[in-house]
Amino acid sequence: MTNIEDPGSNKHFGSPPATVTPAKSTPAETGVRNQTAGTGFGVPGILRRWRREDLIKRGYLGLRGLSLLFSLLSFIIMASNKHGDWRQFDKYEEYRYLLAIGILGTIYTGLQAWRQVQELYTGKNLFRHQTSALVDFFGDQIMAYLFISAASSAVPLTNRMREGADNIFTDSSAASISMGFLAFLCLALSAMVSGYKLSTQSYV
Amino acid sequence: MTNIEDPGSNKHFGSPPATVTPAKSTPAETGVRNQTAGTGFGVPGILRRWRREDLIKRGYLGLRGLSLLFSLLSFIIMASNKHGDWRQFDKYEEYRYLLAIGILGTIYTGLQAWRQVQELYTGKNLFRHQTSALVDFFGDQIMAYLFISAASSAVPLTNRMREGADNIFTDSSAASISMGFLAFLCLALSAMVSGYKLSTQSYV
Repeated sequence: MTNIEDPGSNKHFGSPPATVTPAKSTPAETGVRNQTAGTGFGVPGILRRWRREDLIKRGYLGLRGLSLLFSLLSFIIMASNKHGDWRQFDKYEEYRYLLAIGILGTIYTGLQAWRQVQELYTGKNLFRHQTSALVDFFGDQIMAYLFISAASSAVPLTNRMREGADNIFTDSSAASISMGFLAFLCLALSAMVSGYKLSTQSYV
Repeated sequence: MTNIEDPGSNKHFGSPPATVTPAKSTPAETGVRNQTAGTGFGVPGILRRWRREDLIKRGYLGLRGLSLLFSLLSFIIMASNKHGDWRQFDKYEEYRYLLAIGILGTIYTGLQAWRQVQELYTGKNLFRHQTSALVDFFGDQIMAYLFISAASSAVPLTNRMREGADNIFTDSSAASISMGFLAFLCLALSAMVSGYKLSTQSYV
């Protein structure tokens, strides 16, 4: 799964066998190492890279799971927020917007989590690597923007209602908004990881 | 400014002079080329890379200018939106929020544009490359989130007001919100370019 395409490692293993001594380095190489701090050369560099990619992979799956959880909670809490009279979520456009984004987010993160778990267990990929990196990055980024937009638009209405009355309807709305914000945070982090994967094409 | 650290070009120019024939390629090299499609090898590859980096550089400066323009417009239109009685922006928290983000966005994009123009003309850099890439990416991304949050929160209030009365106050609010959304779009694109720069460290 992980292929090592470090420019530095190519340089080492491409040279004749007599010079493969990762512990020693010429002055020119030291200059290059200082310049691209963080990637590293030779065996320790590769090991560091593997460890970093492993961490990213596990963190990425965790973020997907959390996004799914939070968007599901946001959607369920808002959908069950009907208490008769004026305390019905479907009388307010802000709450309907948050519900719609909650449903969309649940479907998107559910499909993504299902695809990732499947890829992890079967080893087969649904899309080509480059396509899937593009889909991940744009999908995560757009869902993050939609979630922060929906949650922000619902905040002022809830604030104004709570000035008058503080009941189960406003509390449920506030809970749904909070879950929306948490889903936004997870998706924003996940978009950053996707962007890193897209630009390095490291196939983590 | 632009340093060429293509893994492939290293391979070409690192080999003995007798084999430097970019037009021909061994079967092994063709495999590598297919694998990393888009970067390319040899002189045409380097030229393509230069052209792409030049395009990104100019587009990036243009995006900065547009972000500055739109956030300035959003801030000025909202700040001058006082028409007496209930038609004053400072009576509504959504509009105050949009004004605050407009001011913050104007200051941020103004400083960034000033720094970039200075770097372009003097050739000197205020920060180290890695630091400036980090500041660019996180700054742009956070400002984009703030702008979409502020603009979305102000939309429902304006909608509700326009149902009752359609006057200069609601029109100015709508204009300010639109400018906020345009500033968000420019900043989101700019964050994508910053993210690309950050992960490739190509120093464009």
